[in-house]
Amino acid sequence: MSNERGATPGGTTHHLVPATPETVHWGYFSRSLKPVLSVHSGDLVTIETLTHHAYDDHERMIAGDRGAEAVFLWTRDKKNVDRRGAGPLDASIHGRGAGEGFGVHICTGPIFVEGAEPGDVLEVRILDVKPRGSANPAFSGLAFGSNAAAWWGFHYNDLLTEPKPREVITIYEIDASGERNWARAVYHYRWVPQIDPFGVVHKTIDYPGVPVDHSLVTENHGILKGIRVPVRPHFGVIALAPKEAEFVDTIPPGYFGGNIDDWRIGKGAVMYYPVVVPGGLFSVGDPHASQGDSELCGTAIECSLTGTFQLIVHKRDTLAGTPLAGLDYPLLETGDEWVLHGFSFANYLAELGDKAQSEIFAKSSLDGAMRDAFRKMRRFLMTTRGLSEDEAISLMSVAVDFGVTQVVDGNWGVHAILKKALFDERK
Amino acid sequence: MSNERGATPGGTTHHLVPATPETVHWGYFSRSLKPVLSVHSGDLVTIETLTHHAYDDHERMIAGDRGAEAVFLWTRDKKNVDRRGAGPLDASIHGRGAGEGFGVHICTGPIFVEGAEPGDVLEVRILDVKPRGSANPAFSGLAFGSNAAAWWGFHYNDLLTEPKPREVITIYEIDASGERNWARAVYHYRWVPQIDPFGVVHKTIDYPGVPVDHSLVTENHGILKGIRVPVRPHFGVIALAPKEAEFVDTIPPGYFGGNIDDWRIGKGAVMYYPVVVPGGLFSVGDPHASQGDSELCGTAIECSLTGTFQLIVHKRDTLAGTPLAGLDYPLLETGDEWVLHGFSFANYLAELGDKAQSEIFAKSSLDGAMRDAFRKMRRFLMTTRGLSEDEAISLMSVAVDFGVTQVVDGNWGVHAILKKALFDERK
Repeated sequence: MSNERGATPGGTTHHLVPATPETVHWGYFSRSLKPVLSVHSGDLVTIETLTHHAYDDHERMIAGDRGAEAVFLWTRDKKNVDRRGAGPLDASIHGRGAGEGFGVHICTGPIFVEGAEPGDVLEVRILDVKPRGSANPAFSGLAFGSNAAAWWGFHYNDLLTEPKPREVITIYEIDASGERNWARAVYHYRWVPQIDPFGVVHKTIDYPGVPVDHSLVTENHGILKGIRVPVRPHFGVIALAPKEAEFVDTIPPGYFGGNIDDWRIGKGAVMYYPVVVPGGLFSVGDPHASQGDSELCGTAIECSLTGTFQLIVHKRDTLAGTPLAGLDYPLLETGDEWVLHGFSFANYLAELGDKAQSEIFAKSSLDGAMRDAFRKMRRFLMTTRGLSEDEAISLMSVAVDFGVTQVVDGNWGVHAILKKALFDERK
Repeated sequence: MSNERGATPGGTTHHLVPATPETVHWGYFSRSLKPVLSVHSGDLVTIETLTHHAYDDHERMIAGDRGAEAVFLWTRDKKNVDRRGAGPLDASIHGRGAGEGFGVHICTGPIFVEGAEPGDVLEVRILDVKPRGSANPAFSGLAFGSNAAAWWGFHYNDLLTEPKPREVITIYEIDASGERNWARAVYHYRWVPQIDPFGVVHKTIDYPGVPVDHSLVTENHGILKGIRVPVRPHFGVIALAPKEAEFVDTIPPGYFGGNIDDWRIGKGAVMYYPVVVPGGLFSVGDPHASQGDSELCGTAIECSLTGTFQLIVHKRDTLAGTPLAGLDYPLLETGDEWVLHGFSFANYLAELGDKAQSEIFAKSSLDGAMRDAFRKMRRFLMTTRGLSEDEAISLMSVAVDFGVTQVVDGNWGVHAILKKALFDERK
């Protein structure tokens, strides 16, 4: 689908969406959100995204950064972005805070795409991804990210060493210029109870953006010595608004995209999403400097990034006979591959009923995600390549690679990778 | 562990083990098998392996091939290799045939490695892998493999099109010289009931090596047109003998290796296995021309191969401080990576009790395999790199990739890939 049209042809409008308290929504998707911008199909948009883990190290990731300071501002008297999550504003379930942290990602948007209607497909070309450098002069030229080994991680109830359980924050450093292609660990600390500005005690990492008081934690420097983590900048969350509920937790991914957490969704990648609400309502967040397949401990290197995207509407009646025919899930195209995303439940919001948003966390399974990825790849091969079911199944067994996308987002993920070179039809 | 010692230093003995009825055991591992060869640590061994699917196309994969003809010989009066599987010789459970097909792979060996004792580690260097060309002059220069979409496949009870269910054999062709690096499909056919030479009817593919009567099946040619499957020659099964039972089904992999079905176990790879019986009792089988991660439909391109291996014993008291310290599972090293193999049950033979060999098929799960792969990688990083648990867990989340090895072998597999470049300690 990546035709040869240039990324910045004459006449294309290039928008900028900075991250401010007014341009972000925190921890939820909603079909009812007022768009922060309206664009035409083909327009370019540069979008600032902030990691919701920036307050794990205020000095490195917030201090001096006007946008980040404003979004994270939270004093006894003022909390610039109050709702954080899809839960109740009065925090009547757990008392964690507005929105209850049922959803954690700071998302920039939504952007209304003119002409995008239910049944259409939105193509999202990721033209560029840049780290957001530290605004603190002490860290000039560097960017930072936080990796939280948290209570929702796959490891949490399966630790070897004391104290058990525990949460650990590791701060990583990367080169803000992007020239150095690896990250290194700077230090780590154990989470200890933090009292937020409104007086709520957070014994665990149960609410996003809680200011971490570094006088209470012990920083251990000199960790992971000599180890270079390859940088794979990407967006954990790219979503269109789902239609099933008014407020949707950003954590479980689904047919609408969201928190897929596939590190392949970086510069040069093209994503395709089914549009289910007018204008699509496109949002981006959860920026990552790097992640391994599985995102084992619950997070990646959570690092603010700025991306440049081109948004292109494919109308419903143009899809037949293309790889987008019948698309009802998030599809990734890279130069060499098609990557299909399966989940424990393809559409948990519809499949799990009224309690879907809590039930999904009790029903996480790679087995279901493998099943979904298999079915999607079979359909893709049959629909877009005209293979019979028997041809598709044989080809999947001998040439398609299935991998673990993530085991930490409720609706666990398995992706299936189809190499385009299989179809190089040299006779 | 790959030191610089040449593969063929002076003084090293190079053995050849052809595949004959006398040098293979079919469908089972056993600590009690008489070795077909005894070698010294460091010796080279060229080993012929036969795919147990060769009779899916006798003309292309058996005819004219003395070794294959002898191993597969089965007439009303004579069955050269009677036992096929770990089941009873009198087939008193299902009546399928001797060994009941509880285990299907033709394994060449076992080879006794002098000086290998319980507690040691056997290093297996795969120096070369070559396809076994068709011996039929009509197919000169070609080699063939069979892909069976079978009743044990992940897809089998989840088919879209009629007739349901069904089994389908697809025959693939590769270049026997190895110059062309892709396979293509030749034709496929649906399995129809086959009567074996002893008169047993096989409605499904329930016993290995049943002669397929091509007058009963319909060959569909011209399938998967123009599609080139990248060749990844490798051995699905490399095993040392397990100690827990007298006869062990070759299908579920485990701590002893066996049917791991990881396509990375090909030329240039180095495998490490814990030795648990005297001499190790090394066997190789289940040769594959190619496979995708998951081996979705139940098989790869099952294609006879000949491998050249170097076998090196690492004594128990030399392991401390090396990547082999405490090794109790099959570990893969390539030039760039360490690949650790997790299973639904790390040692199903010990964990599942007396009925382990049947229970394991009822307890297949990727979730368990992911858990096992996580634990193994954590231990590997802590033991061999001296990382703390917190360092190991963070690194796994940001830099280790977990993938689906197979979902068809009872004891399902997830592998974890650790890039050696992480540890390039340039300061």
